[in-house]
Amino acid sequence: MGIRLAELVERFGGQLVGDPNLEVEGIAPLADAGPSHISFLSNSKLRALAAQSQACALILNPNDEAAVAATYEGARILTKNPYAYFARAAQLFESLTAVVPAPGVHPSAVVASSAKVDPSAHVGPHATIEDEAEIGPGAVIGAGCFVGRRAAIGEGTRLFPNVTFHAHCRIGKRGILHSGAVIGTDGFGFANEGGVYIKIPQTGRVLIGDDVDIGANTTIDRGALADTVLEDGVKLDNQIQIGHNCRIGAHTAMAGCVGVAGSAVIGKYCTFGGAAMILGHLTIADHVHISSGSLVSRSISEPGQYTGFYPLAKNAEWEKTAAIVRNLDTMRAKMRALEKQIKALTDKP
Amino acid sequence: MGIRLAELVERFGGQLVGDPNLEVEGIAPLADAGPSHISFLSNSKLRALAAQSQACALILNPNDEAAVAATYEGARILTKNPYAYFARAAQLFESLTAVVPAPGVHPSAVVASSAKVDPSAHVGPHATIEDEAEIGPGAVIGAGCFVGRRAAIGEGTRLFPNVTFHAHCRIGKRGILHSGAVIGTDGFGFANEGGVYIKIPQTGRVLIGDDVDIGANTTIDRGALADTVLEDGVKLDNQIQIGHNCRIGAHTAMAGCVGVAGSAVIGKYCTFGGAAMILGHLTIADHVHISSGSLVSRSISEPGQYTGFYPLAKNAEWEKTAAIVRNLDTMRAKMRALEKQIKALTDKP
Amino acid sequence: MGIRLAELVERFGGQLVGDPNLEVEGIAPLADAGPSHISFLSNSKLRALAAQSQACALILNPNDEAAVAATYEGARILTKNPYAYFARAAQLFESLTAVVPAPGVHPSAVVASSAKVDPSAHVGPHATIEDEAEIGPGAVIGAGCFVGRRAAIGEGTRLFPNVTFHAHCRIGKRGILHSGAVIGTDGFGFANEGGVYIKIPQTGRVLIGDDVDIGANTTIDRGALADTVLEDGVKLDNQIQIGHNCRIGAHTAMAGCVGVAGSAVIGKYCTFGGAAMILGHLTIADHVHISSGSLVSRSISEPGQYTGFYPLAKNAEWEKTAAIVRNLDTMRAKMRALEKQIKALTDKP
Repeated sequence: MGIRLAELVERFGGQLVGDPNLEVEGIAPLADAGPSHISFLSNSKLRALAAQSQACALILNPNDEAAVAATYEGARILTKNPYAYFARAAQLFESLTAVVPAPGVHPSAVVASSAKVDPSAHVGPHATIEDEAEIGPGAVIGAGCFVGRRAAIGEGTRLFPNVTFHAHCRIGKRGILHSGAVIGTDGFGFANEGGVYIKIPQTGRVLIGDDVDIGANTTIDRGALADTVLEDGVKLDNQIQIGHNCRIGAHTAMAGCVGVAGSAVIGKYCTFGGAAMILGHLTIADHVHISSGSLVSRSISEPGQYTGFYPLAKNAEWEKTAAIVRNLDTMRAKMRALEKQIKALTDKP
Repeated sequence: MGIRLAELVERFGGQLVGDPNLEVEGIAPLADAGPSHISFLSNSKLRALAAQSQACALILNPNDEAAVAATYEGARILTKNPYAYFARAAQLFESLTAVVPAPGVHPSAVVASSAKVDPSAHVGPHATIEDEAEIGPGAVIGAGCFVGRRAAIGEGTRLFPNVTFHAHCRIGKRGILHSGAVIGTDGFGFANEGGVYIKIPQTGRVLIGDDVDIGANTTIDRGALADTVLEDGVKLDNQIQIGHNCRIGAHTAMAGCVGVAGSAVIGKYCTFGGAAMILGHLTIADHVHISSGSLVSRSISEPGQYTGFYPLAKNAEWEKTAAIVRNLDTMRAKMRALEKQIKALTDKP
Repeated sequence: MGIRLAELVERFGGQLVGDPNLEVEGIAPLADAGPSHISFLSNSKLRALAAQSQACALILNPNDEAAVAATYEGARILTKNPYAYFARAAQLFESLTAVVPAPGVHPSAVVASSAKVDPSAHVGPHATIEDEAEIGPGAVIGAGCFVGRRAAIGEGTRLFPNVTFHAHCRIGKRGILHSGAVIGTDGFGFANEGGVYIKIPQTGRVLIGDDVDIGANTTIDRGALADTVLEDGVKLDNQIQIGHNCRIGAHTAMAGCVGVAGSAVIGKYCTFGGAAMILGHLTIADHVHISSGSLVSRSISEPGQYTGFYPLAKNAEWEKTAAIVRNLDTMRAKMRALEKQIKALTDKP
């Protein structure tokens, strides 16, 4: 069940120093790796740990090679991004033992006769697939999933159990939708008449690109008229809410519990820490990074890291500072009075 | 498939200026509307755009009529609330093409023999309906939904796929429960004995009025002894949590990710921005508006807009201000010392 | 259907003052209790209410006995923790009328032949149980639940409808998983290469101890390599997110909407208010209490109550204080300038 180092290098590149026929049985972090493992050094600060690793082979940056090889006697694969190499190798090792759902439709699934399910796709128990939905080659529809009318699931995309994917929405290739995710629910759109809300039909779709991951119990609203769009490579963690008509740029990642209100337009290569909240109708530039727990209340046109949360303190201390914050304008007024008084004193002949 | 202007006016009121037999095929915003559409002007600032609209008809306020009609040659429907008119007209247009689930119970659904399902209701694939539950006329129970024992779903109310609606809970007419919503789960109630929690049975219900919308993956706890209540017209977005024994007043709306702790009593006609949090056992008056990301830690008796979130800044600037906030009592002490010193200087003869 | 006071004392202890053969039919709060109820006094401030209670019996602390018994003529059970006693008694009364799911597998459930389902367990409609999963004695798997390959559900543990419990994860005895909970979804782990994310396989498990409650739509990620662990007696409310590789200490409780980022290690007997957020890779000591809406951005080694949220104010006032907060470093600079000026004035001969 092992993999030869030559095969790793053939698949993922890198320069091999050592025996190409050496077989490794798995990949593990430096501290955990044993003699049958390959490990990796992704942070130069851990050179000493790497040098003493029990792993039979190491993935490391050429810059670390000399220092490590001075004492480490195993094989090495040199590559500029050892952590990315690790991710790819770990995927390969996982694929050796992963239980892949078999092609075919479970007898308990309810699939509309007009739906197009590729023969290589898997449809699990108790799934429901409605009229004219399309399930691409190698796609996996887990147990209890719902795929609505004319929705489209791309090649190799996987819906874990109990995902709801509404009518007319689309996701591209190699996507992952985790359990409990809901794609394409109505956006929160109402007209108000005398205090009473009148629902505005939400007739747009959710359009999701390739290589997009969506976390457990994350919800994405369909557009009101236009579409909600997630570009290629977007990664969303669990418990995230994306409002209607948002656009999330390619390769942007959001950690758990983030909320994005409707019609926000978010750039590419952004990151959002956990529980960050973005108000509606804002525009966020590419390469913007929002810290956890921060509320974004205005558009951001300049790349960089942005933060806004109240610092944690012992409760008694917080009580003090919060009371002062509540009265900061009083403090400012006092300060101004002092400035005047001092000016008067200083100006005195 | 078009609708005559006369029919719109007959259904929704308004004063028609133009040909009552003109047929429109859909409704679209000013910028998107073509010659087969009716559009609407809901904001006087957009008069110029309206005046040049391609739409064959416009819905607008009488106050805007003169300015628009100076150049716009299409038909007009004059009404005091064009946006509400738009919402109703959009509902009508949507109904022309909407796929309505047919009455009847899908063969894969499991319906207890003691449950009462109205013949005009729809019960989708893999739904489960327990003993003595009642499903009203025209109600729709989506695929994979669960309706517990003695629960009641009112006339015309729709549960989208994968909703869980627990025993004894009730919802009125024309409600919408979006996918993944969970109604009537146990509240978070425990007695503590030596650090260990002992569960307090949650035997109340969730009672929901008419015309209530509940978003995807929103959760509402059943009462501990009394009931959790949502009055008529309440609108909840996605990912909201409502604790046990809360009461939400009529026509109150909450945006995504809001949390309401147990036993909070919230008035009518309130609005809560995204991710607002309301602590337990508080009372919020009618017509209170809470900004996004704000934590409500005390009762509010006066209507108005309330806010409380740390302003966003570039991270380096936030680091500075946060450090000062942490030490605001030191700053206040210094200020007081300065005041004394200045007083001494000023008092000096 | 009543319970004799002697039986209560036999089961739950306490000193009985009054007729052991008196039967009570239910338990209710002081204000609601009628002559067929037993009630409880858990807060000495309510002695007057207790003294006038209509209940035929009271559970109270020996310290309150003299004051209450002066006027109250019903029976009393004296115990040090009346609220815990109430919880246990309420569980007993609820068990008299609760509808217990019958042992056996519903015909519509899909259970792998290699799964081991104890004959005393209940498996509801449309449930899916995969290969080699184990369902313990008396466990309840609700309608629409999914239990993955080699997962284990302990004795007496209940999954309410529509829970997703992924492969290889384990939960102990007497646990409760509320509807929509998702256990064992992939953690949010990626390597970044030139801005593009490469998924790191998540091969750890979620290991949950005994007597753990998990709220509706709460999500718990499986570990990346090691496991995510919830120790005995942990209580999680709804809409909570626990990242991969976290460890939550025994008897820690979290209110709704809390988020815990990956690899956080949280002590025993902690409490987290609603919507508290804990950053990743932090360590929180035992007996730490985090207030609602607070973001924990650093490790906490000392027990106590910690808080950090911006105080709520009328919007206009918040606008003022927020503007000052944004410029606190300017204010500090002015303060320092004043200090210098005053020092100069004071030092003047």
